[in-house]
Amino acid sequence: MPSLPPARAGAPLYEVDTPALIVDLDAMERNITAMAAFTTRAGMRLRPHAKTHKSPLVAARQIAAGAVGQCCQKVSEAQVLVEGGVRDVLVTNQVWGSVKLDRLAALARQAKIGVCVDAAENVDALAAAARRFGSVIEVLVEIDVGGKRCGVRPGAAAVALAQRIASSEWLTFGGLQAYFGTAQHFRSPEERRRAIADAGEGVRTTLAGLTAVGLVARTIGGAGTGTFQHEAASGLWNELQPGSYVFMDADYARNEPDPGNLLPRFEHALFVLASVMSAVAGNRAIVDAGHKALGNDSGMPTIWQRGDLTYQQPSDEHGTLVVAPDGRRPDPGEKLLLVPGHCDPTVNLYDWYVGVRGLGEGRGQVECIWPVAARGAVL
Amino acid sequence: MPSLPPARAGAPLYEVDTPALIVDLDAMERNITAMAAFTTRAGMRLRPHAKTHKSPLVAARQIAAGAVGQCCQKVSEAQVLVEGGVRDVLVTNQVWGSVKLDRLAALARQAKIGVCVDAAENVDALAAAARRFGSVIEVLVEIDVGGKRCGVRPGAAAVALAQRIASSEWLTFGGLQAYFGTAQHFRSPEERRRAIADAGEGVRTTLAGLTAVGLVARTIGGAGTGTFQHEAASGLWNELQPGSYVFMDADYARNEPDPGNLLPRFEHALFVLASVMSAVAGNRAIVDAGHKALGNDSGMPTIWQRGDLTYQQPSDEHGTLVVAPDGRRPDPGEKLLLVPGHCDPTVNLYDWYVGVRGLGEGRGQVECIWPVAARGAVL
Repeated sequence: MPSLPPARAGAPLYEVDTPALIVDLDAMERNITAMAAFTTRAGMRLRPHAKTHKSPLVAARQIAAGAVGQCCQKVSEAQVLVEGGVRDVLVTNQVWGSVKLDRLAALARQAKIGVCVDAAENVDALAAAARRFGSVIEVLVEIDVGGKRCGVRPGAAAVALAQRIASSEWLTFGGLQAYFGTAQHFRSPEERRRAIADAGEGVRTTLAGLTAVGLVARTIGGAGTGTFQHEAASGLWNELQPGSYVFMDADYARNEPDPGNLLPRFEHALFVLASVMSAVAGNRAIVDAGHKALGNDSGMPTIWQRGDLTYQQPSDEHGTLVVAPDGRRPDPGEKLLLVPGHCDPTVNLYDWYVGVRGLGEGRGQVECIWPVAARGAVL
Repeated sequence: MPSLPPARAGAPLYEVDTPALIVDLDAMERNITAMAAFTTRAGMRLRPHAKTHKSPLVAARQIAAGAVGQCCQKVSEAQVLVEGGVRDVLVTNQVWGSVKLDRLAALARQAKIGVCVDAAENVDALAAAARRFGSVIEVLVEIDVGGKRCGVRPGAAAVALAQRIASSEWLTFGGLQAYFGTAQHFRSPEERRRAIADAGEGVRTTLAGLTAVGLVARTIGGAGTGTFQHEAASGLWNELQPGSYVFMDADYARNEPDPGNLLPRFEHALFVLASVMSAVAGNRAIVDAGHKALGNDSGMPTIWQRGDLTYQQPSDEHGTLVVAPDGRRPDPGEKLLLVPGHCDPTVNLYDWYVGVRGLGEGRGQVECIWPVAARGAVL
């Protein structure tokens, strides 16, 4: 059973029960528009990553703005997206095991489904599953362009996998998945630029190998919120797959911005509303949001428009706000907006989005309560 | 909607889809029995903390073994426990805001409900809520015994709060809440012993003040899995509130054990079953369990019975296993049991427990699929 929603439509923000996951709908819509405009100008396809938002309702807004479909990481996420009306889903991940393979192949009868591989055995298992269901699955070869996670080495190994895919009547060779995850969070713009330049070498080598055997990569996919402009400028990638731009988080805000003012500036659109529940000492206050309300793996949240407060020492259900010497300690019962350190795992902790209008004008009214439909979709 | 369960009763462990939350039912039952036997010998009441397991089914087993009821941190957790049959619940936390106060006061008509306070205004708000519902709430004064989180200073401030509670006809003064959270994880036994000795001074001072004004603290509660034997030996506390002992995690296993062989030794009873999804490089393998499948805030998981594998560099849905030079790299598709770094936030990521028998004998069969009923109960 999902937990009770923390608010009702029409309520003012300060009436929302805490902790609650707040979306600034105005800012989210501006982020969606800005990224769509950028990819259109760059002549790229946009396939935003649903691992961030886990919601077919957010996906629908991205697709209405021009996105070709959605990415996700899990078969169970793909299922929620398809059930929510998304017609084109790429699982940017390896799928192993007969239970998941059957679910993926069955889903490919209902929507266009893509998936990534980095092992020949996995290609064969995918083909067998697709044959069982009479469906066709698009398969991309994932190459390791520097992240040292999944993916084969660029070049010959990738070409061999592509040939294996292309030789199956139940699979379509979709192209290359070339995502450099850790590069998204390199702090300096120059580090990020260099990382994607190096990644591009791997893509180029592999494309040459594919051409030599007569294969065409329809999709060269990758890129995240930290590096997308470099993939866009490379002349190699043709599909951008950023996720976090839709909400932005405190960690991405710690990246030094790239030079040049043609890039979209994304706004914080995701918050955790928290209440002060204890304020005994003069210079600290305790809020009701800890590890079970915030994804703290990429650093601590910041406090929205309250530079005098620093969040630290989270425990499961508590966080400590330290008040700067010239700051004001919030009172018990007072509510504050926290900008999560990392949006994806934060979203995954909640059953409900509380969509709010007018936050930028210093007020805020609840417009909608949306389920985080793929929350907990780990399979 | 909860996600699909990852298994069916009767299936062998290796058929469970991954990542999945596995409970070794045999080990859990031994942990429950061992803690119950310890508290009985020590002449203490046992009120285990449901923030760890979030399940009325686990609570029922603890209560059947002698526990007086359950602790929890959130009103919404208390609600799930009461709806699941628990008759005596203490919220070891401050509750602010009219929505939560009303829900707490309403719940106190259905079961015995306790809560903690550290502010006079909160006492008055609790009394007003209880009056609205015609219920009686037991209120404990939380004192800060070193954790620097919630709680008033021991002594006069605590006594004044107790008097305020006792003077309300809708509240019962229940005693003192004296929990030292951070001390649970002090690595050396001597540090833990000293911390609880210091905490005891605060309890002693406050009890003397209560006696001087004619108040009796029925409950002196606190203690966790790291320190409970010191509270038990103090002659001050009379109610132990440990949570993690039921499952144990890798972080508690990193505590140096206390000397003396009369203490119960708790076993790892909680695991995350993960699958290898990529193994391209010779010395590493990628598993399908990252931040959305494991609570990593207290350190990384260990790999059960595989000392040759080290888990590192989790991302949202991936973790990297580094293989020791003399170790064996697991193959793609292979399943491994991970001992979570921190059990409480790990449990909170899942909709389902998969209860397994026979794990200690090197096999394992699914006996039950239990909902993590209070998963996501943040309010």
